[in-house]
Amino acid sequence: MNISDFNHKITITVRFHEVDMLGVCNNAVYVNYFEHARLEYVKAAGLIPPGGIFSDGKLFFMVHNEINYRDHAFYDDEVEVYSKISYIKNSSFGFDHVIVKKKTGQVIVDGKGVVVYVDPKTRKSTALPEDFIEKVKKIDPDVKIIRD
Amino acid sequence: MNISDFNHKITITVRFHEVDMLGVCNNAVYVNYFEHARLEYVKAAGLIPPGGIFSDGKLFFMVHNEINYRDHAFYDDEVEVYSKISYIKNSSFGFDHVIVKKKTGQVIVDGKGVVVYVDPKTRKSTALPEDFIEKVKKIDPDVKIIRD
Amino acid sequence: MNISDFNHKITITVRFHEVDMLGVCNNAVYVNYFEHARLEYVKAAGLIPPGGIFSDGKLFFMVHNEINYRDHAFYDDEVEVYSKISYIKNSSFGFDHVIVKKKTGQVIVDGKGVVVYVDPKTRKSTALPEDFIEKVKKIDPDVKIIRD
Amino acid sequence: MNISDFNHKITITVRFHEVDMLGVCNNAVYVNYFEHARLEYVKAAGLIPPGGIFSDGKLFFMVHNEINYRDHAFYDDEVEVYSKISYIKNSSFGFDHVIVKKKTGQVIVDGKGVVVYVDPKTRKSTALPEDFIEKVKKIDPDVKIIRD
Repeated sequence: MNISDFNHKITITVRFHEVDMLGVCNNAVYVNYFEHARLEYVKAAGLIPPGGIFSDGKLFFMVHNEINYRDHAFYDDEVEVYSKISYIKNSSFGFDHVIVKKKTGQVIVDGKGVVVYVDPKTRKSTALPEDFIEKVKKIDPDVKIIRD
Repeated sequence: MNISDFNHKITITVRFHEVDMLGVCNNAVYVNYFEHARLEYVKAAGLIPPGGIFSDGKLFFMVHNEINYRDHAFYDDEVEVYSKISYIKNSSFGFDHVIVKKKTGQVIVDGKGVVVYVDPKTRKSTALPEDFIEKVKKIDPDVKIIRD
Repeated sequence: MNISDFNHKITITVRFHEVDMLGVCNNAVYVNYFEHARLEYVKAAGLIPPGGIFSDGKLFFMVHNEINYRDHAFYDDEVEVYSKISYIKNSSFGFDHVIVKKKTGQVIVDGKGVVVYVDPKTRKSTALPEDFIEKVKKIDPDVKIIRD
Repeated sequence: MNISDFNHKITITVRFHEVDMLGVCNNAVYVNYFEHARLEYVKAAGLIPPGGIFSDGKLFFMVHNEINYRDHAFYDDEVEVYSKISYIKNSSFGFDHVIVKKKTGQVIVDGKGVVVYVDPKTRKSTALPEDFIEKVKKIDPDVKIIRD
């Protein structure tokens, strides 16, 4: 993954309690950073309903996460979390993430997440709304649309 | 606080990610241990409705926590969290907690928490139900009942 | 506590995973916010050694935390954490904290923390260095100096 | 993955603060469960040095985590985390994990983790010690040994 392919970025500072006894940001914490980045992405894309997240009764659930650890982040490091939606299927979509150390540009982790759109009544996957693709394209014009 | 005054105990093993870069269980983690102990207490007292926690629409909110750090717990330490309800007021009640290292009996932290019973509609404090006192007394017969 | 008495402030946005199943920022999370605020305070005061935190072998341990919950913060709320060192003793010092909702100024929690300065060899409390008071006074000129 | 292929299991109860505002165990929490299970595995295999974890100066770092979410765990659910080391390479090894709901046997998540053995001085990967394979084989006799 090349950060020049990413159009969305957030900056996070590693907090003290996120660092484990090996002195490095704990491996699970990056999954929270990915989650935070995805939510900031959907907010930036105008995908949060006006009444606040989940106020329209629509649910998004993770079905897959993967993460490669390339290097370590330490206490008080500023890291940049780059995110893009790389593809959209009928009822799910995929995120790519890269986290780099702000000061050095060094890649700390990269990873992917798959999110499924869920009908709150049946708790089963359901077709993404019409304007979802349009809103994502405003951030990631090159998103792949995959139809069955 | 003397652990001989406590009738409820849970055992927790300190997990790797709960230990911070100083090599000790992070100070905020004990607040989660207190919370876990309180919920196990109310479960043991028969105070969880049959349909599951909050299924009856009743809410309990923390209004106060305090904690004294006496010593450190480390990765993989088994600790015992002792809890009692020391008093019940009209719409709130107070917990005492002591956490000791299982192997040595050494006190790691002690603390107190105050919980208020909340009407889910108004989100304001409301009178505790009739049988609350009776159920608590099965665990802590000496609980102080404080009426205005 | 009155926020006009505070000279140090950080801003935090409540993250998704910090909100519990009651839909509110979990009660233990604020203790992490306090910790983060204290570390930003000591950084702002020039109290972090040039080689990075703990690089001089000096340790600071919490001995007391207390927190009053006045209201709730929710997902994505920006909160301001105000901190001051209210007193310095021979080998310990006390923080006051207030957290307010940025948008409304509404107080969410307030609390106090006591930190002890520890000799890394003996792991016992030891006298704070000479310039500690001077550096704190640059942020909090009114800090009380309490000598035995 | 079939749980009949696993010889190591730990049981965890989902804690209140691990459940997010969607009412389900947060997606990052399972990564902590995987970590906890791996450490219990290496403990069971006799791979923790007598002086305690890391006391021999040997480091293990994650290089990869992946996780598939099949269903949800809820507050107070007892889950069983099954772990096995599926392969050992020269300086790294791979874990498989499955988490099932104890009551129903329902699969909640499955996943994999790759751990690399690191020389603490160079912080680079280094050959696993001779007896590592033997100790793992006591739990997982069918572990694949992959030599370059």
